[in-house]
Amino acid sequence: MEKITKNILTQVIRQRPADSFKGTYGKIVLIGGSQNFGGAIIMASLAAVYSGAGLVTTFTDPTNQASLHDWLPEAMFVDYNQFDDSADIVKNADVIVIGPGLGTDDTAMTLLTKTFEIAHTGQTLIIDGSALTLLAHNNLQLPSESLNVLTPHQMEWQRVSGIKIADQTPTANQAAVEKLDAIVVVKSHRTEVYENGKVFQNTGGTPAQATGGMGDTLAGLIGGFTAQFADKPAAVLAAVYTHSAIADKLAEKQYVVLPHQISEALPKFMFKHQSKD
Amino acid sequence: MEKITKNILTQVIRQRPADSFKGTYGKIVLIGGSQNFGGAIIMASLAAVYSGAGLVTTFTDPTNQASLHDWLPEAMFVDYNQFDDSADIVKNADVIVIGPGLGTDDTAMTLLTKTFEIAHTGQTLIIDGSALTLLAHNNLQLPSESLNVLTPHQMEWQRVSGIKIADQTPTANQAAVEKLDAIVVVKSHRTEVYENGKVFQNTGGTPAQATGGMGDTLAGLIGGFTAQFADKPAAVLAAVYTHSAIADKLAEKQYVVLPHQISEALPKFMFKHQSKD
Amino acid sequence: MEKITKNILTQVIRQRPADSFKGTYGKIVLIGGSQNFGGAIIMASLAAVYSGAGLVTTFTDPTNQASLHDWLPEAMFVDYNQFDDSADIVKNADVIVIGPGLGTDDTAMTLLTKTFEIAHTGQTLIIDGSALTLLAHNNLQLPSESLNVLTPHQMEWQRVSGIKIADQTPTANQAAVEKLDAIVVVKSHRTEVYENGKVFQNTGGTPAQATGGMGDTLAGLIGGFTAQFADKPAAVLAAVYTHSAIADKLAEKQYVVLPHQISEALPKFMFKHQSKD
Amino acid sequence: MEKITKNILTQVIRQRPADSFKGTYGKIVLIGGSQNFGGAIIMASLAAVYSGAGLVTTFTDPTNQASLHDWLPEAMFVDYNQFDDSADIVKNADVIVIGPGLGTDDTAMTLLTKTFEIAHTGQTLIIDGSALTLLAHNNLQLPSESLNVLTPHQMEWQRVSGIKIADQTPTANQAAVEKLDAIVVVKSHRTEVYENGKVFQNTGGTPAQATGGMGDTLAGLIGGFTAQFADKPAAVLAAVYTHSAIADKLAEKQYVVLPHQISEALPKFMFKHQSKD
Repeated sequence: MEKITKNILTQVIRQRPADSFKGTYGKIVLIGGSQNFGGAIIMASLAAVYSGAGLVTTFTDPTNQASLHDWLPEAMFVDYNQFDDSADIVKNADVIVIGPGLGTDDTAMTLLTKTFEIAHTGQTLIIDGSALTLLAHNNLQLPSESLNVLTPHQMEWQRVSGIKIADQTPTANQAAVEKLDAIVVVKSHRTEVYENGKVFQNTGGTPAQATGGMGDTLAGLIGGFTAQFADKPAAVLAAVYTHSAIADKLAEKQYVVLPHQISEALPKFMFKHQSKD
Repeated sequence: MEKITKNILTQVIRQRPADSFKGTYGKIVLIGGSQNFGGAIIMASLAAVYSGAGLVTTFTDPTNQASLHDWLPEAMFVDYNQFDDSADIVKNADVIVIGPGLGTDDTAMTLLTKTFEIAHTGQTLIIDGSALTLLAHNNLQLPSESLNVLTPHQMEWQRVSGIKIADQTPTANQAAVEKLDAIVVVKSHRTEVYENGKVFQNTGGTPAQATGGMGDTLAGLIGGFTAQFADKPAAVLAAVYTHSAIADKLAEKQYVVLPHQISEALPKFMFKHQSKD
Repeated sequence: MEKITKNILTQVIRQRPADSFKGTYGKIVLIGGSQNFGGAIIMASLAAVYSGAGLVTTFTDPTNQASLHDWLPEAMFVDYNQFDDSADIVKNADVIVIGPGLGTDDTAMTLLTKTFEIAHTGQTLIIDGSALTLLAHNNLQLPSESLNVLTPHQMEWQRVSGIKIADQTPTANQAAVEKLDAIVVVKSHRTEVYENGKVFQNTGGTPAQATGGMGDTLAGLIGGFTAQFADKPAAVLAAVYTHSAIADKLAEKQYVVLPHQISEALPKFMFKHQSKD
Repeated sequence: MEKITKNILTQVIRQRPADSFKGTYGKIVLIGGSQNFGGAIIMASLAAVYSGAGLVTTFTDPTNQASLHDWLPEAMFVDYNQFDDSADIVKNADVIVIGPGLGTDDTAMTLLTKTFEIAHTGQTLIIDGSALTLLAHNNLQLPSESLNVLTPHQMEWQRVSGIKIADQTPTANQAAVEKLDAIVVVKSHRTEVYENGKVFQNTGGTPAQATGGMGDTLAGLIGGFTAQFADKPAAVLAAVYTHSAIADKLAEKQYVVLPHQISEALPKFMFKHQSKD
């Protein structure tokens, strides 16, 4: 098991070329946020925008429109009940994040199914939160063409892989990941990333992060990084490292770290840790 | 009458164990916020989240959904008119706070009654604001199994106990508290806490705090502390002390202290005053 | 014509007595904010809360509920179309501010008329913005029992007094004020206050303040000060001085001063300039 | 091709005269923000208010009312579906900005047509975003009396001028601009401004700006500057310079610059760079 170290940052976060425009930094669509869980998709979108994704569109319940824009005038809004009318935005996205606050009702299931149908070669599809529960309970097949990234916490990973938390050893996990043909981020106080037949372990992370919304923020951050950076598996590792490194820094002075604080710290953190060539 | 001193902080606020997750820090439900008093439940929820409660769900009038998420994407939202559909969230909570901005109409009364029916062993139930008025006027019986914490100001305590403000001596109060079998926090410029047959007096507090919303913030803070810390009566004392200690600090430079400023100061205050072992 | 000087601050802003509660600092009702001008009543309410008023209730169009609470969870909300149901709140207020963003339609006129009918001895009634236009155009009689404070800019004062801007000399203004039997604050780059047969001139103020919302903020600030401080005419002078003194300070580094920045600076400004005995 | 240098700032941003009021700094109307793109018009309005425009009114979809006021209580709101009822506000404006987040549906087309009919001598009309797409696709004639400013990025300029991006040389562009009889700001990583037969090139700008909302912010900023400053072509140049100069400063510490951060930095930037006489 390899450790994820600080080196991953300069390897992934490249200095931006002078002659670039917002299209250079990717189009990302985030889908989630039922009436009950609107905050989750806001936090995910916040991470996507503050990590530098070029164009961010959030598909969510219409009751979340105002609070999305209160946090993020930079994000575009789509009523997720009107998914079909805006399916082209999903088709044209470089990255799709589905799951934060999505819930598990019929609307959620429809959105997940339609997204799976759309996902195609060249797209990164990040599946988080209740989308993982839906995936497991309905025995859905992952899209075959997109690069799929799953971000379960240990209980969600149990649902998806069938491996009980106590039995989630690297070897057992690796076998399950291989069958899925996906990158899998198993979140715990020492998060593990399974990709390309390797296991990586995150070395950072603090119990100050143990609060609702942390996972949503990570999903959005992986979205922002894979939207911008060419080496997708490395971008996932860098996002995982960044998420906990910022939290560790904030936890030097805070008993609890709020998820939105991590997003707001991204522009300065990424500036410091970009490659200088 | 014992003084609450700074010692209560390190006694209660334990350093977080590395191997923990959001479930470790409790599930808390807050119920309140009619259309007129939405700000109250937002302020209570703010204190719960910023004090580190693991998972926070706010039951409130649907017109408050957007402003709840503007302040707190970290909180989940439930339309309190759909209480029955989400009763399981209340059943599974470690802590319930009911009252901030609840009002005293039929909706409020229904919510209070249903909550009293649900409250069970192992739960802490914090009754604040208009829930105390409803309790008094309708002569309700407190739930018998939950740990009940009442947070009246002096006039509300008069309503609940029948003791006029001028006659609210420690002895008179203690007798009334004994009958209630609850922890009672009588708020004034020197707040008193009645628990386990003892009386504690808070030594901090500033007239800069004399503004609407302070009580709501305290209720949420007691919720956040009892959700996280094992010794519930001590957690109540620590919350009372924390609330006024932060206000005292802010009042060194401010003529008036806004309630939301107290919540926002919690992560750093708790970091400084946690136990170091 | 007397100058308003810094001395007015310590004369008015008293150190708060230890044994006080929110009721000590007054109940204030603010009425205004149509669908088009909701920001105005929010800015007025902001000044009232941040200057330390004990309990603030804002009567406004229901479409402004969310943004009111986004800025101010500390304020209570009433749909001004339901004025009659909440008339008791207006009756029991120490201070009423009417006008910021009220507009001049039938709803506005009804609200103004009803407020004039309620206003009684012991209350301070501050009439601002479009309420002054309605007053002038409909030739309304000011309530006879409340202490009335008018806060027109020069054009509104022309409408109310019939004196053209060019002719608004202290002598001419004083004669008009006498007939009105009110305190009148004529706003310009050197604001004048007419009260008790005297004329006071404000010495502060900056062109950086020349932006929409400044007047709304002043109205709310006069509300906050008269709610808290016993000498009402002096409180009006202190509010006028405070408003421009904070703006002058901010304008030492800013080309333009945003109204909400003035309100947010109040707690520290008032702390510095309170009486120390 | 002339470079836009720092000198343009003191040439344009004049110290404000003491005896001035909000009317001195112009009335500006911004029209845009469909349900999907509400953030765009909020960001444009933010730049207008924070650059010091006297009175700002935002015409937008009613679902954006709350978030507009969350960011800007200083702005007035008009439901753009009720355009006709508020046409006088457009007629009386000094500056009209149309396009940020407007979309290209029938509502958008109607708003653009009506605005073009109203625009008259003495007004500056800034045409941005989807309004440019509508202009091109419908072959609309620009209003003949207003001073028209177009702010296309290179692809929008291709649509309007018919010149492919690869062929957008100064000479080719100048010929197209001459036919349009407008000021044209062609946005790229080195933005060019065409006015009065001259071509100006902006020297600042950073790839950290390559994110959604930057253009909306520039449109609002040009609006704020032309509303306040007499020499309109110079004001456009100063706005372009200011926008990238602030971004460059923020990019000294940030990997990505959020559009709203540029607006919030305006009051201090403009203070530093105003003329001192």
